[in-house]
Amino acid sequence: MTAMSTTEYELPQLDSLQRSIRDELSKITLIDPHSHINPHSPSSSNLVDLLGYHYYTELAHSAGMPRESIEDPNIDAKTKVGRLIENLGAIDNTVQWTWMLHLAQELYDWPSDCIDQSNWEGLYDRVVQCGLRESWTDEVLQRSAVESIFLTNDFDDPLAGFDTHRYIPCLRTDDLVFNLSQPAVRQRLEAASNITVNTLEKFDEALQFLFAHFCANNAKACAISLPPDFAPIQVDAVSAAAALQHVLVEGSDSDPAHVRLLAYWTFWRITELCREHKLPFDLMIGVIRKVYPTGVFQGQDLYDSRVSMIQYANLFRSFPSVTFPVSVLASVTNQELVDYAWIFPNVVMNGHWWYSNTPAFIDRDLRNRLEAVPKTKQIGYYSDAYKIEFILPKFSMYRQILANVLAEDFVIKRRWTEERAIALGYDLLRGNVERIFGNHQQLD
Amino acid sequence: MTAMSTTEYELPQLDSLQRSIRDELSKITLIDPHSHINPHSPSSSNLVDLLGYHYYTELAHSAGMPRESIEDPNIDAKTKVGRLIENLGAIDNTVQWTWMLHLAQELYDWPSDCIDQSNWEGLYDRVVQCGLRESWTDEVLQRSAVESIFLTNDFDDPLAGFDTHRYIPCLRTDDLVFNLSQPAVRQRLEAASNITVNTLEKFDEALQFLFAHFCANNAKACAISLPPDFAPIQVDAVSAAAALQHVLVEGSDSDPAHVRLLAYWTFWRITELCREHKLPFDLMIGVIRKVYPTGVFQGQDLYDSRVSMIQYANLFRSFPSVTFPVSVLASVTNQELVDYAWIFPNVVMNGHWWYSNTPAFIDRDLRNRLEAVPKTKQIGYYSDAYKIEFILPKFSMYRQILANVLAEDFVIKRRWTEERAIALGYDLLRGNVERIFGNHQQLD
Amino acid sequence: MTAMSTTEYELPQLDSLQRSIRDELSKITLIDPHSHINPHSPSSSNLVDLLGYHYYTELAHSAGMPRESIEDPNIDAKTKVGRLIENLGAIDNTVQWTWMLHLAQELYDWPSDCIDQSNWEGLYDRVVQCGLRESWTDEVLQRSAVESIFLTNDFDDPLAGFDTHRYIPCLRTDDLVFNLSQPAVRQRLEAASNITVNTLEKFDEALQFLFAHFCANNAKACAISLPPDFAPIQVDAVSAAAALQHVLVEGSDSDPAHVRLLAYWTFWRITELCREHKLPFDLMIGVIRKVYPTGVFQGQDLYDSRVSMIQYANLFRSFPSVTFPVSVLASVTNQELVDYAWIFPNVVMNGHWWYSNTPAFIDRDLRNRLEAVPKTKQIGYYSDAYKIEFILPKFSMYRQILANVLAEDFVIKRRWTEERAIALGYDLLRGNVERIFGNHQQLD
Repeated sequence: MTAMSTTEYELPQLDSLQRSIRDELSKITLIDPHSHINPHSPSSSNLVDLLGYHYYTELAHSAGMPRESIEDPNIDAKTKVGRLIENLGAIDNTVQWTWMLHLAQELYDWPSDCIDQSNWEGLYDRVVQCGLRESWTDEVLQRSAVESIFLTNDFDDPLAGFDTHRYIPCLRTDDLVFNLSQPAVRQRLEAASNITVNTLEKFDEALQFLFAHFCANNAKACAISLPPDFAPIQVDAVSAAAALQHVLVEGSDSDPAHVRLLAYWTFWRITELCREHKLPFDLMIGVIRKVYPTGVFQGQDLYDSRVSMIQYANLFRSFPSVTFPVSVLASVTNQELVDYAWIFPNVVMNGHWWYSNTPAFIDRDLRNRLEAVPKTKQIGYYSDAYKIEFILPKFSMYRQILANVLAEDFVIKRRWTEERAIALGYDLLRGNVERIFGNHQQLD
Repeated sequence: MTAMSTTEYELPQLDSLQRSIRDELSKITLIDPHSHINPHSPSSSNLVDLLGYHYYTELAHSAGMPRESIEDPNIDAKTKVGRLIENLGAIDNTVQWTWMLHLAQELYDWPSDCIDQSNWEGLYDRVVQCGLRESWTDEVLQRSAVESIFLTNDFDDPLAGFDTHRYIPCLRTDDLVFNLSQPAVRQRLEAASNITVNTLEKFDEALQFLFAHFCANNAKACAISLPPDFAPIQVDAVSAAAALQHVLVEGSDSDPAHVRLLAYWTFWRITELCREHKLPFDLMIGVIRKVYPTGVFQGQDLYDSRVSMIQYANLFRSFPSVTFPVSVLASVTNQELVDYAWIFPNVVMNGHWWYSNTPAFIDRDLRNRLEAVPKTKQIGYYSDAYKIEFILPKFSMYRQILANVLAEDFVIKRRWTEERAIALGYDLLRGNVERIFGNHQQLD
Repeated sequence: MTAMSTTEYELPQLDSLQRSIRDELSKITLIDPHSHINPHSPSSSNLVDLLGYHYYTELAHSAGMPRESIEDPNIDAKTKVGRLIENLGAIDNTVQWTWMLHLAQELYDWPSDCIDQSNWEGLYDRVVQCGLRESWTDEVLQRSAVESIFLTNDFDDPLAGFDTHRYIPCLRTDDLVFNLSQPAVRQRLEAASNITVNTLEKFDEALQFLFAHFCANNAKACAISLPPDFAPIQVDAVSAAAALQHVLVEGSDSDPAHVRLLAYWTFWRITELCREHKLPFDLMIGVIRKVYPTGVFQGQDLYDSRVSMIQYANLFRSFPSVTFPVSVLASVTNQELVDYAWIFPNVVMNGHWWYSNTPAFIDRDLRNRLEAVPKTKQIGYYSDAYKIEFILPKFSMYRQILANVLAEDFVIKRRWTEERAIALGYDLLRGNVERIFGNHQQLD
């Protein structure tokens, strides 16, 4: 980073203390506990891989760029980048944009504090050139101090052709729980498991097959994102079997009541399988899909912040041996997350998700967590990235905020030693990830 | 302002930077995008015009003053002011009170840091004397750096007798949407439009007339305040026509189901007319009227913070060409506002409204907005004032907070130049108001 | 406190100002307006009395300690403390733990910055030795600058055998409102009142007896904790009488509809009795009991943050002469509390309760309160303590935050004199408690 960097988070006071803590935290080798990295193509070969991240497309669209400007499949990469750049001046105030600037400077040695219509082609070329290097992925991970990365795998992912110790599989179950009425999902399930799913028993067998397959391939977590109106209940097998028959026959036209009942059963059954396989079950609570269906790709989801952790109390009670790392979409739910983690041994706070992953929300939510919940139950951060280049600026943002909070709330206000504050930071950034998601040997 | 002023917001650190940014922001000539100014009597001729602001009457009442002490119509102005002053000691900690002190010092050269029973008569005299000056309104606007002010006009306002380029009309539609069952409202509509509203077609004609009338008189916005349980839907004309017939016949005794259905239709129709006339539609979401009906005048409304922007998603989807500047009453809704503005091109964040218009809420909400949403979609502030004297202290409060955030989050943490931070402040204070509500020529 | 204390809240800047204000606030003799102190055993005789506080047992349990490790009645005190200590390393980041450290240092002259497996026995002995001193209770209260303490008395408390001017009775009414269907509660009521509760009239007589008994014994408040779905309504006597008959006959098997209807009637009747007896009625809004029934003792309650003060608007309107000091469980409700106290003369903000009693929430909630509501309507803090030793560290935490806010928001930003800021602090810490809960003579 150049001395004049626009994106380094400097602080007006406590300067040396905060910087010193941040620098120590930066030395910690990371395990990124949640991402959307494609292990077959983890890094970027073109600037469109970076600027195509939904944060930039949706913000450019929000600022006035028509969706068609970038979503026509006939547009070549360079044209698309040019069109995006035209619309990104309006977002240069956002933290999302600082991620782009920061990674350009840190990973591509971009010498400027801005990327705009006057200079973007230079960056375009740098990204292409770097992407051609066979070592690029390794270089990025090394510069980002990242050792391994959790994935978000479709349930029918063969998990073959990549190093599952560097790219750790995580079984994503949204489709199984919410979309089984779509014939394509059922077909994928049958193809993956080689089981004809025509009864609840067979569906259960297929689920068991998936868990066995994932665990045999070093999966360390199961995960699901959940709409705000979901409140898990246990459903008896007879009712679930009947609902499944409806869903199998009626497909996408199924009565929503059947689909919902089957979702309850499936969710509960998946939790039982997490228990059997000792997999933590990541709950990502609060998203409503396709609130804005004519928005850009991946820029269509929002939420209703009126959600409560009480909806999950029965689940937490029913599965005391399953660890639930929980993420909440809206910061207003953070206090409930803190307090449910305070009381329930099996509830763990997990990162700062999506719409709450901006500095002012992180700062507030982090302080509330650190001061009230055992330090062993806090997973500090995950990147949620689609390309590994974004791990660096996102974790960098988080580390700066964490360093700030550790300096102010612990070293200054509580007179902790700097070493002790850094050790707490280590727990959040690395120690708890290792312990919660499996032993060190397995993760490494 | 005197050197010893009680009300200037000074900051303990970054002193010179924050002050420098604030001073630059103070030079920006303002367009105040929402107020309740009466253009026929914009300024105050008596201290009771100032202390009669609901913030003072409701807080004095809250602190123990009986409503009757000030609401008997036989009480003369000076007696009423004296009674209020007696009860305002208990509110000297509030920011609302600092507005009063600040305007007294800035506009009336009030030499003291307090206004109390010992000295208020001096201020009383100053206000009367200033109010007698023909130039007083111009003086206030000039000292406040205000060029033009949006009004809140009843739908039957003739919009005559004032300069609509200084006092910009805004069509307020609460009565049309929610109160058409009141015979007086219907009579006002018929008188204003010269149309007998006895069918849905005629009602529609009357609405069209109002829009034409307002737009012919330089109206730049339509506006409405909405209760937390309102979730707009599109209603077919046949159902709406039937509901209207009930409402016309049954008036205030109408079945609430008919009133609600008609409200849905009217709200949707008004949005269509905003589209036709290219008027932004200000949505002020969350208020419940008359929660405390025995409170003082204008001190009776509160809210239920359990409201979600999801209630408006269908509206935003259905009117992509209508701009919706949205205000939310409770700060807990601010994150949803940020995130809906982040995704929807036609949603703009608008000011800090009423119960969220105090410094700690503004500071928090502003940071969350500035770091996540395109800078073009942020209308920084409006005064909501009933008398122009309040524009100065309210905008001054906002500018100080904005300067603080720009200094800390942009100049220090992101290493922006001061000029660039000030330019961002300009967008919020002036540039976006001009662009969103109409072109410069029209507004000036 | 030693110079190297871990727990003193020092601040990085404004150092001398904040410290000076804090030191002045520390001289104020306190009336603690809400606690669970047992007046027959107010102080601790054993470390298990301190570490048995639910904050430590529930956090140790949350961090992994089995409930059985500490809840077997056969475990002796020292063994139980040893087991807790083993599990408290994981909570050394929490503010709850700083309370323990702070009281150890301040009250027991504990010379270290940690209490752990290596040294706890030394503290164990100190607590036993101090507890043996007849003067210990007086010493603790004196060092804590506490003059008197409000209790939380069961409705059938004889209120005998203690000084009701030091330990001020408060009639806790949860059982009467919510648990009358439990035969044991009815039996306790009959035993306390010597009235056979077989009709609504008799139930009313018993309630009247309780109020008379409490008021005759210097009670200064009535109190209740309320679940988030409670919304008081007035029920007619005929319906209530019928519901009571069901509840008397069916006991714990009663139809919940009858129990609820009776709860409404009882709550309303108790509010009437508060009016008659001029007792403030403390409402503690939001808790759900036994969300986690297999949690440790007193570590089973949580909440649903989706609650609104609007549920109480009708109550506030109906009882203008009753003062309602209101506490809310989740910080998200704090703005509603601020705004209902801003409008309703009889609503007072009361302390920082339970899950919102951690520094970052207090800081935020306090700023929002101080800047918007008359200073006469703010009860700053209560300890909620079960043992008097916790009053000191909890009030110390609050005073430091209050000093910080007074320094930043009032002395620096508003240029108040330090004396004036301290006077505002006095109102919150002492003046308002005296005025709201009774005159000085009665309280002393």
